[in-house]
Amino acid sequence: MTGLRRVLVANRGEIAVRIIRACHAADIEAVAVYSDADENARWVQMADDAVHIGRSAAQKSYLDPDALLKAARFTDVDAVHPGYGFLSESAAFARAIIEADLVFIGPPPAVLEQMGDKAAARRAAEAADIPVVPGSGPITDPAEAPRVALEIGFPLLLKAAAGGGGRGIRPVRDTEELLDVLPGARAEARSAFGDATIYLERAVPNARHVEVQVLADEHRNVVHLFERDCSVQRRRQKLLEEAPAPALRETTRQAITSAAVRLAEHVGYRNAGTVEFLVDSDENFYFIEMNARVQVEHPITEAISGVDVVAEQLRIAGGAPLALDQDSIECRGVAIELRINAEDPERAFTPTPGDITALHLPGGPGVRVDTGISQGDRISPFYDSLIAKLICWGTDRQQAYARARQALAEFHVEGVASTVALHRRLTSNAELGDGPVHTMWLEQVLADD
Amino acid sequence: MTGLRRVLVANRGEIAVRIIRACHAADIEAVAVYSDADENARWVQMADDAVHIGRSAAQKSYLDPDALLKAARFTDVDAVHPGYGFLSESAAFARAIIEADLVFIGPPPAVLEQMGDKAAARRAAEAADIPVVPGSGPITDPAEAPRVALEIGFPLLLKAAAGGGGRGIRPVRDTEELLDVLPGARAEARSAFGDATIYLERAVPNARHVEVQVLADEHRNVVHLFERDCSVQRRRQKLLEEAPAPALRETTRQAITSAAVRLAEHVGYRNAGTVEFLVDSDENFYFIEMNARVQVEHPITEAISGVDVVAEQLRIAGGAPLALDQDSIECRGVAIELRINAEDPERAFTPTPGDITALHLPGGPGVRVDTGISQGDRISPFYDSLIAKLICWGTDRQQAYARARQALAEFHVEGVASTVALHRRLTSNAELGDGPVHTMWLEQVLADD
Repeated sequence: MTGLRRVLVANRGEIAVRIIRACHAADIEAVAVYSDADENARWVQMADDAVHIGRSAAQKSYLDPDALLKAARFTDVDAVHPGYGFLSESAAFARAIIEADLVFIGPPPAVLEQMGDKAAARRAAEAADIPVVPGSGPITDPAEAPRVALEIGFPLLLKAAAGGGGRGIRPVRDTEELLDVLPGARAEARSAFGDATIYLERAVPNARHVEVQVLADEHRNVVHLFERDCSVQRRRQKLLEEAPAPALRETTRQAITSAAVRLAEHVGYRNAGTVEFLVDSDENFYFIEMNARVQVEHPITEAISGVDVVAEQLRIAGGAPLALDQDSIECRGVAIELRINAEDPERAFTPTPGDITALHLPGGPGVRVDTGISQGDRISPFYDSLIAKLICWGTDRQQAYARARQALAEFHVEGVASTVALHRRLTSNAELGDGPVHTMWLEQVLADD
Repeated sequence: MTGLRRVLVANRGEIAVRIIRACHAADIEAVAVYSDADENARWVQMADDAVHIGRSAAQKSYLDPDALLKAARFTDVDAVHPGYGFLSESAAFARAIIEADLVFIGPPPAVLEQMGDKAAARRAAEAADIPVVPGSGPITDPAEAPRVALEIGFPLLLKAAAGGGGRGIRPVRDTEELLDVLPGARAEARSAFGDATIYLERAVPNARHVEVQVLADEHRNVVHLFERDCSVQRRRQKLLEEAPAPALRETTRQAITSAAVRLAEHVGYRNAGTVEFLVDSDENFYFIEMNARVQVEHPITEAISGVDVVAEQLRIAGGAPLALDQDSIECRGVAIELRINAEDPERAFTPTPGDITALHLPGGPGVRVDTGISQGDRISPFYDSLIAKLICWGTDRQQAYARARQALAEFHVEGVASTVALHRRLTSNAELGDGPVHTMWLEQVLADD
């Protein structure tokens, strides 16, 4: 089925567990890596082999390409799965993997480069005949910004050209505000992404965030696995995702999924990726960016499509053609994912690292929990604050949300503050239950408290 | 959606947890019951209310209809869910519930009586034009048995007319053996089922056990949710079940599911039930019995059909028509269930009650665990030895079994011996993986050890 024999899992937490499970189910050995902080972690115990790669700070371990390459050579793997975050979208890392004669489980480095440069990604979308939000090309000279902004029209979003995942974005209402935030935005872009280049995009009011999962093999086959609505965000970080997107017209669904497939074909995409769009209240949609990796919220797509996204990543990387054709992929029911983070919603979502002294996970029909921790483990201050992803499927939205409410009633975590109580509120919220909400909805709900 | 407001869960263990979840997801309150041994049990904590119903011995609690009725009245419920086992198929209990002006979540008492009398059930099947294994009517006079046996032909099975669930069955090869076991079988039937009546059935060699899940509402709608293969048995107790039945001809599948629906219609069945068949190597099938309740292995049907069997039980009992029509129910993928019992396969499957000192459950895509216990709980000697049901779904058999192997690798229980290691062997067994096995297969595998 697949050409891979042994895979280095160059990541941590729940996605490391997820990849190890997929490797084992495909009869592939999995090698874990760990920092000082993660020595006794769950995924380390699950793997067939494990390598210490450095200190707890991510820069000294999970973000250190040399340490990961060394681990790969030392453990005789034939491929590297980068997961999400960390080095997953680093073209340089992918190139180093390939130069070491290993398989990088992701798209080609050139595609990572193109999709990582947000302005280049926009140009690719336009070339593939996909609408983009009216906006500028890259702006390196800040003096040009006010003129360009007036051409596009306010309100605008100021974005870091090298940003992504919702980071490096600032809303600006007028020229005054633009001049006000510009120096800080450039400085932040330089320090966060190593590049001060910014660009401007017209803000789309009351927009939903809808994204399409695609799979592309080495044999020019591209399929989509329907779409996800990820509009429930706080500060552009997703908290609750749903698939398929609720109350989306069938014509829009077809147009948006076709657009995603077209972009993947146009750029020569390979492996799993996600094309993100804004959808306005008239269901006009605009390309935002393409995430060239597996995403946190991929399980809701697995729940409705029955397709194992990580297993397909391994198959594709092993050179096998997709066993799926578009017509055979069917959408069944509705799934939502709730991110259970060690954050305190009562205190501005401050991360609350600490020891998980008790952890009782829910179960039953339609309920899946993906987690990288076990009771007794510590949520470390060095990494993201995800405790677990709770995925609930139902034949319809009503059943999916009802099962989620029951699962959240069972979900019990002690030792750290968490977003469980917030998710109990959200899954009982009538506005969310009744239909689509836009990306600023959650902030408004929280502001009303 | 449903007319029920508050349900007494007249059972224990994983099925109590399962019913409480379904109640809550349908916005119905759930009231638990517990014996001395179960005072701090998981389902007691999950329920909205809980009633102590007696001593640890089941006869003094879960099998005591008066204690359960008193609990129902005391907690002001409007319905009683009997689960499986215990009083679930007792027509007298169902009648007492109904006479107390409560809803019995199951079939009408007259149907329980008819299906509980195995000879009457056979007659009903014959009247509905469903093949039955050549056999006798009820034999109350043991002196008649040898003559009847010769008419049917050896080898035979001697069965208790009031038995069920694989209990009260003895194989007999010839007249000598028949005369040998007859007195003991009658005595056992009398003590186990309160009725010494036996009947004889011709043994079907190399038969598979295939059963069909049906749902029937109060409005004469009957649907099936496909079939399950439960041939992996030890001493007629199921250990591993699979849905749909592997390598069954489509014509057989249609004939057997139609037969099950026909029987349900013929007897005026209501609620969830299972029609059990033997299927010989030529795919002739023969009715065995109908289990007039939800079954242990119902989750594999939920996994392939997407239909929540317990939620449907609640809807039907509330008087709602089925929201399903046969054509809209589709089978997706393959699911298997592994019963993780506190039994020692190395010591003839002796139950091993004791404290569960550690319990790590698997997760990930396609994996569901239903359990009534938490780490620190005790597997009591008073009840069955089920620790958990592990249900694994995949797009095909290969993926379902591969995921099961990974889930079993993660499944970790300390404090008692369990069937985990046996299931690791079974899910790696090439004969089982290659296709159907018959009901004596596991005994032969175990005998070869």
